[in-house]
Amino acid sequence: MGMTMTQKILAAHAGLDRVEAGQLIEANLDLVLGNDITSPVAIREFEKMGANKVFHRSKVALVPDHFTPNKDIKAAEQCKCVREFAKKMEVENYFEVGEMGIEHCLLPEKGLVVPGDLVIGADSHTCTYGALGAFSTGVGSTDMAAGMATGKCWFKVPSAIKFVLKGKPQGWVSGKDIILHIIGMIGVDGALYKSMEFVGDGIQHISMDGRFTMANMAIEAGAKNGIFIVDEKTIEYVLNHSSKSWTVYEPDADAEYDEVYEIDLSKIRPTVAFPHLPDNTRTIDEVGDVEIDQVVIGSCTNGRMEDLRVAAKILKGRKVKKGVRVIVFPGTQKIYLDALKEGIIEQLIEAGAVVSTPTCGPCLGGHMGILAKGERAVATTNRNFVGRMGHTESEVYLASPAVAAASAVTGKITDPDTLLKAD
Amino acid sequence: MGMTMTQKILAAHAGLDRVEAGQLIEANLDLVLGNDITSPVAIREFEKMGANKVFHRSKVALVPDHFTPNKDIKAAEQCKCVREFAKKMEVENYFEVGEMGIEHCLLPEKGLVVPGDLVIGADSHTCTYGALGAFSTGVGSTDMAAGMATGKCWFKVPSAIKFVLKGKPQGWVSGKDIILHIIGMIGVDGALYKSMEFVGDGIQHISMDGRFTMANMAIEAGAKNGIFIVDEKTIEYVLNHSSKSWTVYEPDADAEYDEVYEIDLSKIRPTVAFPHLPDNTRTIDEVGDVEIDQVVIGSCTNGRMEDLRVAAKILKGRKVKKGVRVIVFPGTQKIYLDALKEGIIEQLIEAGAVVSTPTCGPCLGGHMGILAKGERAVATTNRNFVGRMGHTESEVYLASPAVAAASAVTGKITDPDTLLKAD
Repeated sequence: MGMTMTQKILAAHAGLDRVEAGQLIEANLDLVLGNDITSPVAIREFEKMGANKVFHRSKVALVPDHFTPNKDIKAAEQCKCVREFAKKMEVENYFEVGEMGIEHCLLPEKGLVVPGDLVIGADSHTCTYGALGAFSTGVGSTDMAAGMATGKCWFKVPSAIKFVLKGKPQGWVSGKDIILHIIGMIGVDGALYKSMEFVGDGIQHISMDGRFTMANMAIEAGAKNGIFIVDEKTIEYVLNHSSKSWTVYEPDADAEYDEVYEIDLSKIRPTVAFPHLPDNTRTIDEVGDVEIDQVVIGSCTNGRMEDLRVAAKILKGRKVKKGVRVIVFPGTQKIYLDALKEGIIEQLIEAGAVVSTPTCGPCLGGHMGILAKGERAVATTNRNFVGRMGHTESEVYLASPAVAAASAVTGKITDPDTLLKAD
Repeated sequence: MGMTMTQKILAAHAGLDRVEAGQLIEANLDLVLGNDITSPVAIREFEKMGANKVFHRSKVALVPDHFTPNKDIKAAEQCKCVREFAKKMEVENYFEVGEMGIEHCLLPEKGLVVPGDLVIGADSHTCTYGALGAFSTGVGSTDMAAGMATGKCWFKVPSAIKFVLKGKPQGWVSGKDIILHIIGMIGVDGALYKSMEFVGDGIQHISMDGRFTMANMAIEAGAKNGIFIVDEKTIEYVLNHSSKSWTVYEPDADAEYDEVYEIDLSKIRPTVAFPHLPDNTRTIDEVGDVEIDQVVIGSCTNGRMEDLRVAAKILKGRKVKKGVRVIVFPGTQKIYLDALKEGIIEQLIEAGAVVSTPTCGPCLGGHMGILAKGERAVATTNRNFVGRMGHTESEVYLASPAVAAASAVTGKITDPDTLLKAD
């Protein structure tokens, strides 16, 4: 029996010829990631272990992105702890406010992840890098600590679900709609501790930014990781961003999958996840009248250039509905700058949106856009759990940047096509 | 005995021919201001009074600027309270995130204050509008409530100190340096419950933005208000921003002043207020070696176009010192957009600064740049009290945008001239 992409990467990093689902292995890590919330805990564990240096100065990444610029004194102290640790350990990939971004947008941009890498991060959306054909997964702070000290981590080899993507997405349909459609289909525990492997010739029609969005949300179906086959777009991205060497792993023809889904991308409609779970999806044709108070465009899920470009395309020359707050979070300083040079930031501001510094912000109820009781937001973020963006009686509707931008103009959840046809 | 500018405005608004220092009067209000911190308290008082409408729908301004975009659930609830009140009372000058700005930058920009106006605001820096030859002063939330209900407020007529400004500021010296110099000279209680009246032909060399900065900080010398004579620059500003009618009040030749200071602007050096009081000033030549962790450029004191322009002039083509966080807060969405169109935002980002949405942010320890224990910031803000920007063991050094920007490049408090000569 052959191996999946994920199994091949794990085997290679464990120095084994083959692994199988359920097997416990110890594997070498190419990168260990932490942020301002999780790293301080990991640093204390690291010190308790008696560790006095990190396993590799260029293979640890520390990104204070959650409550920065410092929300409050506690956030300031957390960031200070991370900063001082980075300095003491001579961690090369520590990113300060000003050179920073949302971790899962920043690391690929900086070329720190390439195909075939094995990455752990003390953040659940670390699975994002699967878009590059890497194995990456979220871990707890203790695993992060051990990973920083030893460069190794234990894994239970996951089984996998294969998603064979066919056809071409139509109109405004993006990676976000596809992954929401899939999570709606299999449920929030549909891929529990499994790999979601994305293959098929439909992938060529999904941009790298769209793939990052999809891999990012694999965890929302409970997956251990989400991973894409490597194609020309992947190679082009890596050549443009990284000088690291890489290895492409393809699934064996006889790899075992728990399930196989064929998905015709041409049939997917813009999709929205209603409160309070990412699998509570409806197509844009089924949403009905949902009035909103706030729109959030950004996050590690949808804060990349393509996302901002789509939002600006819809908002350009239009105005945000009176009374609706629209907050845009570019994923990194570079994305912000590129968007600025392209005229996107100007179009967003002229429409009546505000553009924040890169930060996780309201996505996790952090800061910069928290909801009051009874308020509703359409957000391009990844979770709509009870109280995720603020008050327990607030509501979050997950959508694509296109749907979010169209909704900003009308003040209710809106199909971009309907908005544009109304002109 | 004649009257001061302030006394003339108060007399006119009280329907009296003359008033004198110490007299208690009831005066009509042209504008009543509140923000997201003070308005909810005022709204509760307003309701307790049994009031059911505001005295004038266009003479109340509600600006949720302090903890917005909503920092946390409490902030969200405060803003919701203000938003709902504004809607219920049909307040015309309610400004939502996206059309918003820092209150004291926003109101003049929107043309809501003109020469001769009498303005109260439940915010201590309401004195800012004195730059326009208006009487404006900070009040408590109860006065704000009564003001909203009745359009009137009680005042004890202040005596005054006259500042006769002569000569032309040299080099990088701005309104900020002048007002810090003055506060250093007279102390934080040097003008307690008095008017600071700025006259003299030196004023022609101070931009409107510089005058806003100076009037803004009158409260830091304990003053009831700070007020400038109206000249061509004032008229030009008002014609460009407002359609309201206005009245110019000049001090009588025989107006009584408690003190008169002559200040030669050409002799003032870039000035920095050391912790922990705004009067603890040193010239840039006396600062010594002060290493910093953070630079804040913005606020109701220095978040205007000229401020951003100066910062960009220094930061353009340079890089923020590694390890220093530089956070820029444009005063309003319009200032942000104008700065963007002028290339300023791009220059700031390329240098390594981050640019926030307009908010009071870290100035009052709110959010978006709070300091940890032992950290130091150079800030263009207005107060450097113990714990003002975060931890009680952090330090704030007040300076001009030019000094702040130069310090961002070197990582210690720096004379812009020294930086530029080093090139």
